[in-house]
Amino acid sequence: MKAEIITIGDELLLGQVIDTNSSWLGQYLNKLGIGVHFKSTISDSREAITNALLEARHRSDVIIITGGLGPTKDDITKITMADFFNTELVLNQQVLDWVQSIFTKRNLPLIDSNNQQAMVPKNCEVLWNKNGTAPGMWFYENGKAFISLPGVPFEMKTIFEEEAIPKLKSHFNFPAILHRTIQTIGIGESFVANKIIYIEETLPKHIKLAYLPSIGSVRLRFSAYGEYMDMLNKELIPIIHELYNTIGEYIYGEGDDSISEVVGKLLRNKNATLSTAESCTSGFLAQMITSIPGSSDYFIGSIVSYANRIKMDELNVPAEIINTVGAVSEECVIAMAQNLKAKFKTTYAIATSGIAGPGGGSELKPVGTVWIALASPNGTVAKKYNMGDNRERTILRTSLTSLDILRKELLMSN
Amino acid sequence: MKAEIITIGDELLLGQVIDTNSSWLGQYLNKLGIGVHFKSTISDSREAITNALLEARHRSDVIIITGGLGPTKDDITKITMADFFNTELVLNQQVLDWVQSIFTKRNLPLIDSNNQQAMVPKNCEVLWNKNGTAPGMWFYENGKAFISLPGVPFEMKTIFEEEAIPKLKSHFNFPAILHRTIQTIGIGESFVANKIIYIEETLPKHIKLAYLPSIGSVRLRFSAYGEYMDMLNKELIPIIHELYNTIGEYIYGEGDDSISEVVGKLLRNKNATLSTAESCTSGFLAQMITSIPGSSDYFIGSIVSYANRIKMDELNVPAEIINTVGAVSEECVIAMAQNLKAKFKTTYAIATSGIAGPGGGSELKPVGTVWIALASPNGTVAKKYNMGDNRERTILRTSLTSLDILRKELLMSN
Repeated sequence: MKAEIITIGDELLLGQVIDTNSSWLGQYLNKLGIGVHFKSTISDSREAITNALLEARHRSDVIIITGGLGPTKDDITKITMADFFNTELVLNQQVLDWVQSIFTKRNLPLIDSNNQQAMVPKNCEVLWNKNGTAPGMWFYENGKAFISLPGVPFEMKTIFEEEAIPKLKSHFNFPAILHRTIQTIGIGESFVANKIIYIEETLPKHIKLAYLPSIGSVRLRFSAYGEYMDMLNKELIPIIHELYNTIGEYIYGEGDDSISEVVGKLLRNKNATLSTAESCTSGFLAQMITSIPGSSDYFIGSIVSYANRIKMDELNVPAEIINTVGAVSEECVIAMAQNLKAKFKTTYAIATSGIAGPGGGSELKPVGTVWIALASPNGTVAKKYNMGDNRERTILRTSLTSLDILRKELLMSN
Repeated sequence: MKAEIITIGDELLLGQVIDTNSSWLGQYLNKLGIGVHFKSTISDSREAITNALLEARHRSDVIIITGGLGPTKDDITKITMADFFNTELVLNQQVLDWVQSIFTKRNLPLIDSNNQQAMVPKNCEVLWNKNGTAPGMWFYENGKAFISLPGVPFEMKTIFEEEAIPKLKSHFNFPAILHRTIQTIGIGESFVANKIIYIEETLPKHIKLAYLPSIGSVRLRFSAYGEYMDMLNKELIPIIHELYNTIGEYIYGEGDDSISEVVGKLLRNKNATLSTAESCTSGFLAQMITSIPGSSDYFIGSIVSYANRIKMDELNVPAEIINTVGAVSEECVIAMAQNLKAKFKTTYAIATSGIAGPGGGSELKPVGTVWIALASPNGTVAKKYNMGDNRERTILRTSLTSLDILRKELLMSN
């Protein structure tokens, strides 16, 4: 079964609104083993909608259309679909009652454009929209399903899950597809690829590997296609096992795990606490750690020592260090981490100091030079990095790398 | 001139990555007066890419393709494009030198898959990628331009702006279009719209107003279409003037100004300094302030007092306050701001304390309750907000609101 998604709306083409509906639909269908093989975004025009429907009918079995169902006059999906199926719009009394009840409940006057919501193509089945006034629509013709949904995300999602999916399951066979996503950190895409090419090359044809890189990390996604989930799962186990053997040190989690979440769990399991002394990351690391709900269980706080005098006054970095080797140095981050650990009485303390740029670089310490230290019950370690010449990325990479250093320490001391 | 965008990647179809590239491109082209009339997302397969290129050639004059240029073997855009144009891949020595220099600088070994980045279709012109190893490509045939760009957003954006746009301008006619963007903060979209509807209703037909809302702020973009930039500019002046008269208190800047930038300039002009005492924002505010290069001129540092004991030990918040009215209170944020201002010896200090959720709410202080204080040479003020029930948005809104409070204080005391 081949599915495609058509999103309608000039605001999407203009980039004024980012289309999250089609990603959500793609994920949802993918989990059910249905591959979305094509997505398109078109304008609110009859011609564009008709063309898209004509092409989709040749290409796909299930066509999901979002948007263009509101009461304003630029929304013409409904009448265009009626024409496409050679039928007309008729009043649906149930929908009309529903729309009227919503307006009555909210004490709003019902104007004519709201009543229009109850007009639907004669050949469609209404997909009930319990969260709004625009009904979804299901069309089934010659073995192809067309599902039209409103563009408002929470309305679209509920209708799709509760109304459209049961209909799809009764009309189509759902294949088995299994995904396993492995999260790596601290190794670039091409280096991972090089290390595991021998695994990739021996994958059976029905198992695919995709590299999904983002700044500082790479996700590896295995997708297995077949008939029986149990069998696919069994097939993936030795492959994933081999992956851990080869690049295990870079793997920090699976699925949707974030490094902050993984580190948080390890800290919680140990009843350990954490603090950060941040110069170049300037709070970015603290906010990354606390993006996880409940992080107050292990995260105590941070001193962002942007000015050198704060490093001296609050983190007791000796003036001598600042004046001789400078703030971006092994000595400085070690003092920052050790002294914060003592001051905040935490099990672990991370310190960062670097030159995020664009200014401040020198021959000896170019932009991107970063020192990271971790103070732990086993002592303090520090390491130097070059994070490149982009300010934002240097801050992000430094924060991710810091958390990965802590993760490894937490695993080692288990 | 009709433009379309093709984004390539199974991860986009699967919804594992949200496509922000095409929104960015749509916005960028729209600003230049070029309408994107079609967008599609296709899989990493030769067939899908070839079909998309064939259809695009009939439909559009400018075809922008993103993704599929990485060094791993699932990336096959380049070879498919070479076939599409009946040519072959050839080595580009300049690109090879560049790729090698990047690896040398970072002390990384160069493996064969990296060298592959220097192979490009014979008929293309390379669009230089100064941020990465995958070159962009420009193809021009029968009056149609095909622009292939890497999928990594910051690489894609720089290549498009610096390399592709000049080429487009030399091959196509761009209409005259003038934009003025006004940045507002602290007022919702429908409220702005209501206040300025009388301006909107009297706009001449060739001047359009778009509302571009994001969390905590709304941009108002006026677009004037015509023949002469000078005339368009003159026409916009009284309109913008009227806007300032009506909603001036909410306007913090124009164009691409960020609130951090605007506040930074005001601080710098006054030779003033700033520090932050953060609980619920947990470093987010500090990193927002320091996202601006050169912010070390006025930003001294932050104490992230996530645990109450840090509020007491480091910010001298009396235990009595924590034990009676609690950490999310007027008394607490006032103490935090005043004491940090004194401790860090800064002109201004901002304090935040709130319940970001999802846990920690109560009848009296529901999730989203936030107190913000500003300590300044004129004394300390504090205010309570409800920022809603989403953790991420509460942190962002609190940080933006804090900066807006400081902005207003800086303007008042001018």
